[in-house]
Amino acid sequence: MKLLEDRILQDGTVLPGNVLKVDSFLNHQIDYKLIKALGEEFYNTFKDTGVTKILTVEASGIAIACAAAEHFEVPVVFAKKGHHKNVGNDIFTADVFSFTKGITYTVAVSKKYLNAQDKVLVIDDFLADGQACMGLKSICEQAGAEVVGFGIAIEKGFQNGGKLLRETGIPVQSLAIIASMTDDSICFASND
Amino acid sequence: MKLLEDRILQDGTVLPGNVLKVDSFLNHQIDYKLIKALGEEFYNTFKDTGVTKILTVEASGIAIACAAAEHFEVPVVFAKKGHHKNVGNDIFTADVFSFTKGITYTVAVSKKYLNAQDKVLVIDDFLADGQACMGLKSICEQAGAEVVGFGIAIEKGFQNGGKLLRETGIPVQSLAIIASMTDDSICFASND
Repeated sequence: MKLLEDRILQDGTVLPGNVLKVDSFLNHQIDYKLIKALGEEFYNTFKDTGVTKILTVEASGIAIACAAAEHFEVPVVFAKKGHHKNVGNDIFTADVFSFTKGITYTVAVSKKYLNAQDKVLVIDDFLADGQACMGLKSICEQAGAEVVGFGIAIEKGFQNGGKLLRETGIPVQSLAIIASMTDDSICFASND
Repeated sequence: MKLLEDRILQDGTVLPGNVLKVDSFLNHQIDYKLIKALGEEFYNTFKDTGVTKILTVEASGIAIACAAAEHFEVPVVFAKKGHHKNVGNDIFTADVFSFTKGITYTVAVSKKYLNAQDKVLVIDDFLADGQACMGLKSICEQAGAEVVGFGIAIEKGFQNGGKLLRETGIPVQSLAIIASMTDDSICFASND
């Protein structure tokens, strides 16, 4: 998606440790116009898949998920990280290992908000090692729900998550795929 | 706001410890239509205050803040809880004591995204003891920015936060104020 790639080139910065900083428009400060465009793009791709729920994980996925929800006209469910007392005990959970942080955390969704009739579009802001998305997929499976697609804003194409998700056979749309990045250049790959 | 009050009466549940559970439409599953209406309501109230940024705190405030941002046509900034390496070290911080959880956590905003020219609308999903909002106000003060309003979805009117915020002299709009709640009844107070 050219709009997102251009914005990454304009405002993204590369930090040591393969960190792409996009906090001026995506995951700290949010450009609502860009987010709306991302949501519409996911709709254009997945509009014929019968989506009944959009599932993301707090916090950075929420804005994009809501922007998409407006087009699909379905609820958003955001998985909570860790154990929140507000979620209750009747929950689906998955353990997610973060390669970046070197820790495992739990994501949880109340059993009330996913069921066997649901067709779920999983949305997240970043795809790196794919563990968060696989955790959300596991939660859907526990609910008997079907994941009909993964919608990712930025995929780090040089990490393993894209391969992992595509091997599931579930369609993956990444709006920008970073093929490589250094201090002074960011190269994109095609999504085809 | 009748729409929100009706929804709380319909789908909210009261748990022991003064917990109002609204996770079917506000802070776990999100009804995007309701959220859009809340955002529009905040715009109707604060549209003449010259808002340049909307500030909230992850995670539950993000959806409402984005819905409002679309009307104000300004960026959202969401404060991060704890210390995120993606935020960097050049940050404004405030310590927030949560009466509910009995813990103090830190909220942080990068210095890049708030400045002395900003007129900030602070938005959050819940107002109970007001510590989160006061923390966000402190962060704005550190930036030299002006808080022009507090926009709250649900205020627990029987806790101290509303009084605390209103004593600052900054306009507070709570779209639903819970006067009292028990297992089988929820009563609202007027916002006037």
